[in-house]
Amino acid sequence: MKNNLFTLVLAFLIAAPSFAQQAIWGGQGVVSPEIHDDNTVTFRFHAPKAVKVEVTGDFLPTAKIETPYGQFDAPGSAQLKKGKNGVWEYTTPEPLAPELYSYSFVVDGLKVFDPNNVYLNRDVSSLTNIFIIGGDRASLYEVNDVPHGTVARVWYNSPTLNKNRRMTVYTPAGYENSGKRYPVLYLLHGMGGDEEAWIALGRTAQILDNLIARGEAEPMIVVMTNGNTMKEAAPGESSEGLIKPASLGSMDGSMETSFPDVIKFIDNNYRTIKKKSGRAIAGLSMGGFHSLHISKQYPDMFDYVGLFSAAIVPGKDVKSPIYENSDAKLKTQFAKNPKLYWIAIGKTDFLYKGNEDFRKKLDENGYKYTYYETDGGHIWKNWRIYLSEFVPMLFK
Amino acid sequence: MKNNLFTLVLAFLIAAPSFAQQAIWGGQGVVSPEIHDDNTVTFRFHAPKAVKVEVTGDFLPTAKIETPYGQFDAPGSAQLKKGKNGVWEYTTPEPLAPELYSYSFVVDGLKVFDPNNVYLNRDVSSLTNIFIIGGDRASLYEVNDVPHGTVARVWYNSPTLNKNRRMTVYTPAGYENSGKRYPVLYLLHGMGGDEEAWIALGRTAQILDNLIARGEAEPMIVVMTNGNTMKEAAPGESSEGLIKPASLGSMDGSMETSFPDVIKFIDNNYRTIKKKSGRAIAGLSMGGFHSLHISKQYPDMFDYVGLFSAAIVPGKDVKSPIYENSDAKLKTQFAKNPKLYWIAIGKTDFLYKGNEDFRKKLDENGYKYTYYETDGGHIWKNWRIYLSEFVPMLFK
Repeated sequence: MKNNLFTLVLAFLIAAPSFAQQAIWGGQGVVSPEIHDDNTVTFRFHAPKAVKVEVTGDFLPTAKIETPYGQFDAPGSAQLKKGKNGVWEYTTPEPLAPELYSYSFVVDGLKVFDPNNVYLNRDVSSLTNIFIIGGDRASLYEVNDVPHGTVARVWYNSPTLNKNRRMTVYTPAGYENSGKRYPVLYLLHGMGGDEEAWIALGRTAQILDNLIARGEAEPMIVVMTNGNTMKEAAPGESSEGLIKPASLGSMDGSMETSFPDVIKFIDNNYRTIKKKSGRAIAGLSMGGFHSLHISKQYPDMFDYVGLFSAAIVPGKDVKSPIYENSDAKLKTQFAKNPKLYWIAIGKTDFLYKGNEDFRKKLDENGYKYTYYETDGGHIWKNWRIYLSEFVPMLFK
Repeated sequence: MKNNLFTLVLAFLIAAPSFAQQAIWGGQGVVSPEIHDDNTVTFRFHAPKAVKVEVTGDFLPTAKIETPYGQFDAPGSAQLKKGKNGVWEYTTPEPLAPELYSYSFVVDGLKVFDPNNVYLNRDVSSLTNIFIIGGDRASLYEVNDVPHGTVARVWYNSPTLNKNRRMTVYTPAGYENSGKRYPVLYLLHGMGGDEEAWIALGRTAQILDNLIARGEAEPMIVVMTNGNTMKEAAPGESSEGLIKPASLGSMDGSMETSFPDVIKFIDNNYRTIKKKSGRAIAGLSMGGFHSLHISKQYPDMFDYVGLFSAAIVPGKDVKSPIYENSDAKLKTQFAKNPKLYWIAIGKTDFLYKGNEDFRKKLDENGYKYTYYETDGGHIWKNWRIYLSEFVPMLFK
C-alpha cells in the first residue's frame, strides 16, 4: 500500500468539491446569508456581469398588490450593492426579529435562489430559500441540543380509498426505549400541501422536540397525513413520478370518510392511548375544514380540536353525508364536552369573516371554545405560532 | 353559514397559488423538463429579457476540463432557442438512455435552477435539478406501484463519541406487521456526504422497494449513518443551525472505533438477525474505506462487505490502532470466510490505481473477493449501479 496515494486521495476529496463549486459559482468563500451577532443579516450574491441585484423576502416591509381576489401583501425588495470581485451585498439596516424567513434574489429581473444557501422550503410548487433568526418563539423552530424525536415516512393502507398512502409520523424522544403509551395529534395541511408540509414549513419536529424538552408539552406522537385523497403521496413520492405539484385538495367528504383508516393504522402500529382523551386533531386552512368535519362526524374520537385559519363553510354544491345535518352533529359533539375546541386566525386572513360567522354560531348555541387571534394573514408564520400555542394545551 | 363564501374560498384556494406563481415567474403553464414518449426531453425557461439561455447537465456530452488534480469530465451544455411569450426551449436531438440525470440552466452566464422543477438533489453544498428517464436499471430508481418501506430519521447515542447522532433507517414493507427478524445492510457515504446522501442521491429506498418487490432481494433493513464523527447530523439537522455544508469526513479511526455503538443501537431497537450472517456493510469512496477497516477490525461482525469506488489506503500520518497491523487483521478476516467481499469501481475513477493495488494484494494472499468494473468515474451514477448489483447478493 502506498502512502503517497492516500495523501493525494485526501487532497482530492477535500479539494474537489470546493473546486467544483468555484468552477460553477465563481464565488468560492461567499457566505450568504450571514446572520450577525446583533441579528442584522447580510445577503451576498456573486454576479460580476449583473446590472441590478435585488433581494426579496418576507423580512422586508411588504408591498401592497392588487389582484382579482383583492389586495394582498407581497414581499418587499431591497437592492444589493456591487463590491469587489463581483460580489453584491446588502445588510439589513435593523436587526431582524426572531422568525423563520424566506427570500430569493432577483438578478436583472430574473428570480434566482441563493447559490450559497442549500436550505429551501417547497410551498406547493414554489421553492424559496430560508433562514432562521433565533430567540423568543423562533427558538422553537431551531434544532437545539435537546433529545430529538424520530421522523418517519410511513405507508398505510386505506381500504375506504382503496389506496396505499404515505404519511409522516413523529414519535417523541424516548418512544423507542419505553413501553409507555402515547397520545396522538393528527395534524392536517392546507390545499396544495401534502404530508411533507407540516414537517418542513411547519417545523413540527423542532417545535415538538423543543416544547417537550422544556417540559411545556406532553410527549406525543404527531401524525401528518396527505389531505388530497386523489393522491397516494406528496409530489415525487408516488408512482406518478417527479410531477409538477398542483394546488389540489379534497373537500368532497372523502378525507373525512376515510379518516378512520388512518386512526386504525396508527392505533394498530404505535403504542397509542386508544381513546378520545388521547387524541387531538388540528389543521390549517383546508386542514381546519377537515378537522372541523372529522371531529364532528366522529364525536367520540377527539377530545382536542384545533382550527388554524380554517376554511369553515361547506358549499351547497358539495354532496356528501359528511356535510349533512351539520348543526345536529355539532350539537352532539359539544354535548360530549370536548376538552378543547380551539380556533385561531389572523386579523387580515381572507377567511376571517367565515371564522367570525362560525364563532357567532358557537356563541349562539353556548358551545364552549377558545379563540386566539394574531396579526397577519393566511401564512405559515401564523401556523407555526398556532401549533406552538396549541400543543402545550394538549393531553394535560 | 353562507354558501357564497365557500365558493369564494374555493376559488381563492385554487387560484391563488397559480396566481402567485404567475406573478413571480411570469411563466404560468411552463412545463420543464417535459419527458416525451420517445424519451427525448424538452427543457423550457421563461426569460423574456435574456440574451442567451443554456442548459447544462450530465445528459449532454461531457467536456474535458483541466484542473490541478488532472483532467476531469465536466457536464456539457446546449443552447435554448427563444420562442413566443419569452419562453426558451431546447429538445434533445436523441432519446436519452434510462438514468437519473442532473441539470441546471445558465442564463446570460448566471447558473440558475429550473423554476418549473421542484426536484433538487443536494451533493455536499451544491444543489442541482434532477429528472429520471425510466426503464432498464433506472426503473429501480423510480417510485413504482409496489409496497414501500418506511424511511425514518432516528437519533441514537454513541458513548464512544459522546454524542447523540442522527441516522436514516429504511425498514422494508411489511416490517411493522410481522414478528420476523431481518438482516441489516449498513450503508456508508463518502466525504462531504451525510446520513441524507444515500437516501437522496443514492435512491436507496426506491432501489430496495423495487428489488424486494421483484423478488430479487431479501427484505432487509438499511442503516445509513453519518461518517463525519465531528458532527451530530447532516447540515441543518443539528444545533449548529442552517450552516453551509463543507466537504468533511473522518478518516482518523473514529468512525471505525465508534461503529459498534451503531450496531448495538440497531440490534436493540429493531428486530434484527444479530449475527454475522445477518449483517452487511458497504460504502462509497470514504465509506468504502470505512467499510474495509470496520469489517477487518471486527471480523465476526459482517459476512458481506462492499467497497464502492473505495478510498483504499490509510496514510502513515494517521495514527489510530484501527490502521495498525492491517495485514494481520485482513488475514484474520479472510480466514473466517466472509460470504461476499465485493469490490466495484469505474474505469476512469481517480481511485482506480489504489483499488488495483489492493486487489493485487488480495490475489497474492489468495483472499477471495468478487470484482465488478464499470465505465465512468467517481460519480453517483456508478454508486446507484453498485448498490443495485450488491443488494441482490446479500443474505441468500
